[in-house]
Amino acid sequence: MSENTNEPTPLKEIGEFGLIERLTKNIELKNTATKLGVGDDAALIQNEKSLTVVSTDMLVEGVHFDLLYVPLKHLGYKSVVVNLSDIYAMNATPKQITVSIAVSNRMSIEALEDLYEGINLACEMYGVDLVGGDTTSSLSGTVISITAIGEVDEEKVVKRSGAKENDLICVSGDLGAAFAGLQILEREKGVFKDNEAMQPDFSGKDYILERQLKPEARKDIIEYFAREGIVPTSMIDVSDGLSSELIHLAKASEVGIQIYEDKIPLDPQTINTCEELNLNPGMAALNGGEDYELLFTVSIEHFEKLKSEPLLSIIGHVTDKNSGNNMVASGTESLIELQAQGWQH
Amino acid sequence: MSENTNEPTPLKEIGEFGLIERLTKNIELKNTATKLGVGDDAALIQNEKSLTVVSTDMLVEGVHFDLLYVPLKHLGYKSVVVNLSDIYAMNATPKQITVSIAVSNRMSIEALEDLYEGINLACEMYGVDLVGGDTTSSLSGTVISITAIGEVDEEKVVKRSGAKENDLICVSGDLGAAFAGLQILEREKGVFKDNEAMQPDFSGKDYILERQLKPEARKDIIEYFAREGIVPTSMIDVSDGLSSELIHLAKASEVGIQIYEDKIPLDPQTINTCEELNLNPGMAALNGGEDYELLFTVSIEHFEKLKSEPLLSIIGHVTDKNSGNNMVASGTESLIELQAQGWQH
Repeated sequence: MSENTNEPTPLKEIGEFGLIERLTKNIELKNTATKLGVGDDAALIQNEKSLTVVSTDMLVEGVHFDLLYVPLKHLGYKSVVVNLSDIYAMNATPKQITVSIAVSNRMSIEALEDLYEGINLACEMYGVDLVGGDTTSSLSGTVISITAIGEVDEEKVVKRSGAKENDLICVSGDLGAAFAGLQILEREKGVFKDNEAMQPDFSGKDYILERQLKPEARKDIIEYFAREGIVPTSMIDVSDGLSSELIHLAKASEVGIQIYEDKIPLDPQTINTCEELNLNPGMAALNGGEDYELLFTVSIEHFEKLKSEPLLSIIGHVTDKNSGNNMVASGTESLIELQAQGWQH
Repeated sequence: MSENTNEPTPLKEIGEFGLIERLTKNIELKNTATKLGVGDDAALIQNEKSLTVVSTDMLVEGVHFDLLYVPLKHLGYKSVVVNLSDIYAMNATPKQITVSIAVSNRMSIEALEDLYEGINLACEMYGVDLVGGDTTSSLSGTVISITAIGEVDEEKVVKRSGAKENDLICVSGDLGAAFAGLQILEREKGVFKDNEAMQPDFSGKDYILERQLKPEARKDIIEYFAREGIVPTSMIDVSDGLSSELIHLAKASEVGIQIYEDKIPLDPQTINTCEELNLNPGMAALNGGEDYELLFTVSIEHFEKLKSEPLLSIIGHVTDKNSGNNMVASGTESLIELQAQGWQH
């Protein structure tokens, strides 16, 4: 465009190939194993003596995100992070991603560039190469599909299926914050719809909003395991809520689970916000999802190292399969059976 | 469901995890390198001493397919094939795929199972393992995103960028048939919309309809190269039309292109249908797309082998960059400059 305007550029103006060139021109490859990136029929990745790890996720407008309150740069960042989280959940290191986007015709090129800015920032932060993808038009909402590829030494890989009776159950960070952040966004969206002149009230909610809008994957936990010589017996990332993920581990490992409600790590902002909204913060942690923390089981021999580690909380232990999956309610000895959720979006 | 009915099952009845179990229960892993498939945070693929090749494609309802006339089983099959075609276009062998689907709420579980039947059939035909994916709901149309992962010896990999002056330009099979098939489907859809009692008239169109609805990837061409000891200098698959793909090869290789209109391989059904619809069959080949044939350049030393090979046609040769990208029109000596297309859906 030769005109000097700030008007958003409609997608049709530059065509598919022009668009791909514009979106991928800033990509710098970071991994020596990445032999060929965007621009051919496929990317090329050199093999080494280890396992390649592959994970894929799809985010749909109106289901996983609402463009009314999610800035596109954050959306791009989050789309990458949720995939990398799955790679870390195998105790692996992500190396490459591919990104496919179906673009709503309501979206301008500048908006799409914001989205890619977030994607590229996440690649930068996590040392990952964007090596391919597909950009297409959509007649309705925007859909983002990302595949992440990582690497792990064969003896260090952690599946969902290795938990053993008496193992400790641990989780990184804190839980329920992303869910609490979403409730605040939904509340302010409702206020805005009723009266467009109202400014949203986000004071004192910065942490839970960031957890919802710009979550991070727990690269630091994988690095901690490597440093301390710990290989968990099973692991999963918390995307659908603690309860659902515990049941996944129990099922895959053919064990039972016992956790303690008062051990579930909660941030003060999560607790305050839930009380303000008449929600139970423990339920936000159990069923809220989108925490992208790592939930893992580990041999009790590592107890001394783990108990004083601020990155982690020990929340329970593995039992035999017949005992089922239970939580000891706060301040009682009564057991509550854990329920699976999923598709909570 | 305990009731014995033939009613389609709404998706919400079995939930996300039930759905994933139901769709993935028949998967058998075919490649020894596939260490872990669906059911964990990520799939695991063992490395060997070669290059890993990764390709991804997204298909959007209303843009790439119309559920009014595309049977779901065919759609599933085609979604896989278009990805494998990109892997073959690197002279590589596909080994694994991941499949992510955003499912329109208009779709029943049985319909989704038909889609997966097609996906599984393609995996069977091409010896590929389905190792992961994501299933989510969509508020509007259905979106399918597939990532294919393959393998190739480092010395056999073929990029878009290796074409040299005087190389032969070849293409497998014939071109324009999928485009002609699409025109027939669109015509009959129009007739059906005007009068729902009308039966579609597809007589004598079986080949071009199959090319549109159930295309194949050219695994046989890669096997032919291996058998004959041929490594092309550059290669691409024909997804957007011959003209656009030739320009991609020319640009990546920094060369010019000269092809001959009367050498473009056309099936008699393509020619007849185009004439019936007042279309130029050559234009169907140049701009139609979705052929999934392999277009490649190869050293002239292989001319004797290639000229008598029924799988292939020699359609031109590589020139210097300054000569541009041109086609010699049939029965003349006049040059027509090739134009890029793309996003022709």
